Amino acid sequence: MVQEQPGRVGRRLSAILAADVAGYSRLMGLDEVGTARALREHRVVADAIVTRHGGRIVKTTGDGLLLEFPSVVDAAECAVAVQAMMAERNADVPQDRRMLFRIGINLGDILIEGDDILGEGVNVAARLEGIAEPGGICISSSAYEQVRGKVGVEFIDLGEQSLKNIARPVRAYAVARDGSRAGARDRAAAQNPL
Amino acid sequence: MVQEQPGRVGRRLSAILAADVAGYSRLMGLDEVGTARALREHRVVADAIVTRHGGRIVKTTGDGLLLEFPSVVDAAECAVAVQAMMAERNADVPQDRRMLFRIGINLGDILIEGDDILGEGVNVAARLEGIAEPGGICISSSAYEQVRGKVGVEFIDLGEQSLKNIARPVRAYAVARDGSRAGARDRAAAQNPL
Repeated sequence: MVQEQPGRVGRRLSAILAADVAGYSRLMGLDEVGTARALREHRVVADAIVTRHGGRIVKTTGDGLLLEFPSVVDAAECAVAVQAMMAERNADVPQDRRMLFRIGINLGDILIEGDDILGEGVNVAARLEGIAEPGGICISSSAYEQVRGKVGVEFIDLGEQSLKNIARPVRAYAVARDGSRAGARDRAAAQNPL
Repeated sequence: MVQEQPGRVGRRLSAILAADVAGYSRLMGLDEVGTARALREHRVVADAIVTRHGGRIVKTTGDGLLLEFPSVVDAAECAVAVQAMMAERNADVPQDRRMLFRIGINLGDILIEGDDILGEGVNVAARLEGIAEPGGICISSSAYEQVRGKVGVEFIDLGEQSLKNIARPVRAYAVARDGSRAGARDRAAAQNPL
């Protein structure tokens, strides 16, 4: 019934976190050297937070970052800590020069190839990052089920999302940043139903 | 926003597999020594299958067994292989003497305490085992989402289940054993709606 294959692909359950910088090309257009330096400096602080939460950097690609965590609770807490740190660092920066990370988190039984990870679980994390607001965090329902009640933030149900090149729709949740922000967004949505 | 606690509890995403012997007390009543020996012999074969699928025996309690797997796909394949092995070993045993395992599988961001695992993720696995048919496998929707399309068996949607001492209902899926068996169960359910 089950084929035992000695050389079969390794699998493991992991939390996958994908991050990038919103409007990175625009920022580079405004100030190439300054943007590259700012990203490098932010990354030093962010990497320390990642390490503290048990995360592993799988790969970096320009402004993109792929992380793996043994626990999705730890991954979510890490994302919240990184966004809080960035909000602080951005406080004195003019609005159009702010570097804002978008973060997507998914949970998957992913394929392991040496230090690399792959599979649909990884692709979904990257797509969730793509629909996250600048400065925001977007997680899948699989991740949400494991973190609700365990991480001290509120989540906003974004409903089923059709993600590019992902066969099934994925229900997504956004981390609410603060009461006023969520309220403003709800009011905007009510005024501008799409 | 996030409190960093140096001594905080460790967490990791794991597949949790709980198993026990259906009607173990009844079998012990029929033949104490024979039942204990049969269980011991079955366990030797089952343990080898568990090891081959990357599973770890967390604890055994009489006829009960708690296993942890890094991958839920591997856990499900292991469960299918164990039940297939048991079906073979039971083929020549009189019906009322057959030892039938019930298996429950869940996925959870569980708490780690040395070699022990705990948390709701573990409790749900044990409750799913309790609603599995003798010789059957019952998995949570969290587990199902990670294994569908990746394990060569069919699943039957059992709907939302209220599990004892578990706050939220858990949607459960049973592994279909063969076409005729599933069909028979559907017919029985149609005749005996509860």
